[in-house]
Amino acid sequence: MALVVQKFGGTSVGDAERIANVARRVVDRHRRGDDVVVVVSAMGDTTDELLALASAVSRDPHPRELDMLLTAGERISMALVAMAIEDLGVPAMSLTGSQAGILTTADHGQAAIVDIRGDRVRAGLAEGKVVIVAGFQGVDPHSKDVTTLGRGGSDATAVALAAALGADECEIFTDVDGVFTADPRIVPEARKLPEISFEEMLELAGAGAGVLMARSVEFGRRYGIPIHVRSSFHDGEGTWVKEDTMEAAIIRGVAHDTKEAKVTVHGVPDEPGIAARLFEPLAEAGINVDMIVQNVSIRGVTDISFTVPKASTQRARAVADEVAQAIGAAGVDIDEDIAKVSLVGAGMKSESGIAAKMFRILADHGINIEMISTSPIRISCVVRGGQVVEAVRSLHEGFGLAESAPIGAAADA
Amino acid sequence: MALVVQKFGGTSVGDAERIANVARRVVDRHRRGDDVVVVVSAMGDTTDELLALASAVSRDPHPRELDMLLTAGERISMALVAMAIEDLGVPAMSLTGSQAGILTTADHGQAAIVDIRGDRVRAGLAEGKVVIVAGFQGVDPHSKDVTTLGRGGSDATAVALAAALGADECEIFTDVDGVFTADPRIVPEARKLPEISFEEMLELAGAGAGVLMARSVEFGRRYGIPIHVRSSFHDGEGTWVKEDTMEAAIIRGVAHDTKEAKVTVHGVPDEPGIAARLFEPLAEAGINVDMIVQNVSIRGVTDISFTVPKASTQRARAVADEVAQAIGAAGVDIDEDIAKVSLVGAGMKSESGIAAKMFRILADHGINIEMISTSPIRISCVVRGGQVVEAVRSLHEGFGLAESAPIGAAADA
Repeated sequence: MALVVQKFGGTSVGDAERIANVARRVVDRHRRGDDVVVVVSAMGDTTDELLALASAVSRDPHPRELDMLLTAGERISMALVAMAIEDLGVPAMSLTGSQAGILTTADHGQAAIVDIRGDRVRAGLAEGKVVIVAGFQGVDPHSKDVTTLGRGGSDATAVALAAALGADECEIFTDVDGVFTADPRIVPEARKLPEISFEEMLELAGAGAGVLMARSVEFGRRYGIPIHVRSSFHDGEGTWVKEDTMEAAIIRGVAHDTKEAKVTVHGVPDEPGIAARLFEPLAEAGINVDMIVQNVSIRGVTDISFTVPKASTQRARAVADEVAQAIGAAGVDIDEDIAKVSLVGAGMKSESGIAAKMFRILADHGINIEMISTSPIRISCVVRGGQVVEAVRSLHEGFGLAESAPIGAAADA
Repeated sequence: MALVVQKFGGTSVGDAERIANVARRVVDRHRRGDDVVVVVSAMGDTTDELLALASAVSRDPHPRELDMLLTAGERISMALVAMAIEDLGVPAMSLTGSQAGILTTADHGQAAIVDIRGDRVRAGLAEGKVVIVAGFQGVDPHSKDVTTLGRGGSDATAVALAAALGADECEIFTDVDGVFTADPRIVPEARKLPEISFEEMLELAGAGAGVLMARSVEFGRRYGIPIHVRSSFHDGEGTWVKEDTMEAAIIRGVAHDTKEAKVTVHGVPDEPGIAARLFEPLAEAGINVDMIVQNVSIRGVTDISFTVPKASTQRARAVADEVAQAIGAAGVDIDEDIAKVSLVGAGMKSESGIAAKMFRILADHGINIEMISTSPIRISCVVRGGQVVEAVRSLHEGFGLAESAPIGAAADA
């Protein structure tokens, strides 16, 4: 008998019929003798509708109240899923984040999970029930106020709950079939990966692959919970994200990200502490800086370029302008027409020449590289926005990702 | 400085614009220096929409989960009201029934309030905040499950909260202007009452006046909380429901009820214990019996008639049929084409001849009386359903209710 946490996203519980499907799926697993905890998101567009209501009554909705409002979304879906499961003859019980003991920081709208007291979940399981837990939400134990976890919050709830309960696996049901060697909308030959390591998945998530947020993968990695990313529309196997993989692949996949903008501060005096003076105020302003590149200094001045989410461009410009003036830099440029393309693979740690090959492929396709950053298992290049599709396709083909059936994946091929 | 509880129903918070109106109203009161606690229902049709979703996923929604689902409704409206108040520059905080410490029985869908621990409400007020509390909902302190209070639950929340907090008054904002001498849709001359006693309001509520449920009035009476029933659409005074009234009116108003059916058990052996054998199983089946009339016994057999809500007719027939067979009665008749018309007024306690006058007026209009029941301050008659409008109008006119401007109400006339 296993303990499994199954997470269903907003599309999977989008209407009554889909909720009935989810219930059947959960009940199938329960009838096989396993303990099942279900984590659900809000139905379809509910969150957007609630946000629209908030905007209609307030120019700047109070964060505490916005969380109170948004958490109604999962409350609705979790109760409906519980009813649908009961209707199939299996006892079920829904719990809010607060009731499930999901304790978070007080940061409304982007709270972090600090602890999970799963007492009521365990008690429900002990009574033979399927326990449904609201994703995306928790409670600040000090103020007792309800919080939300921000983007990817329901996945984080599921994996963290799996860790707290000592679950055998965490299944993330989604509207795609798994993790692919590249975005199948861009690369039709992209291949579904049967498995991938936590580290690789972290890099892919950071490089723009939207299927699973980094915070969930991080929970899985820290507590050793295998995560199975799979389709909610059919029974086929998806992708296992786990500790060790049996595969020998050097490159796991190509990811791309068109949601970042490049900020360049020109003519920066090359003195100790200059970078700190720039990036400290950016961090204080809550701006997530991704890639950072500093040019070689020429005659005591240099350029510093970094990428930020496009949504933060205006704030980033304001901060950068202020700092530029204070440190005597020449000026600030913003470029929103960029894209990031990344190669990810644990095998590149022990393989040389990967970066050189990547740069050669891009050059052969006339694609200029504007920024480069690397980790032991990832190489990212910033290119022109209009060239990203060609960059992804040429790298996918150049590294033979469509063909390389890795060891251990034969059954899935 | 007063402490006031203001309750706004579903129509009053039906859309963003109305919520903004509610916020302005609350803020006006707060700025006058009073502490304000706001109780809200779910927006407009939200509850019906959630019920429809429940029916779509389950033939017989689990009561615990149905309560979990429905309580999302007030969660949405209370957060929006809080945001709208904050937007006007006044600090506000919304609390669920559970957070507000509204402890109830475990009867899902029709829980009774057993205690209110208003600590977080008081703490919010002490910080200068307007505190918004979800109506209609509470928590069973033993299971920690969320409950709902059933029909009229938000009014009950408001009055009970006012009692627990020792509020100076409880304002019930609704879509009518107050309590009238008769239903203004039937009697255009009906007059809004400036005030009415708890006892009279209880009788009116029991006699079919829908403006305020008996359970809320009962809370007000027990804890001496004046209730102000008034319009949410304008600032005019409504009706004060309170302990003592200054008025000398004998008759306060005419109420009618077309939502009951008459059940008659014929040929009942007139023996001790027969009534108990009939009404005990009805009570066990959860059927609310209103009027009961037993005819004079002729040759050892009698007829027993009683009224029940039309929604319970089928269950009442089943129980009555079974009992009739067991006790050797002749048979059971159901009559759904009836109506109840009632005269209510505390002054009739010390006045004789009111009942006789009522019967005379009805007779003069050719209206046959099928059942009669009385309390010290109420006389109710069952008549044919098709004659109820004429009965109400003739009694309203016959007792001069449109003209009788009572003492103390001159300013309002």
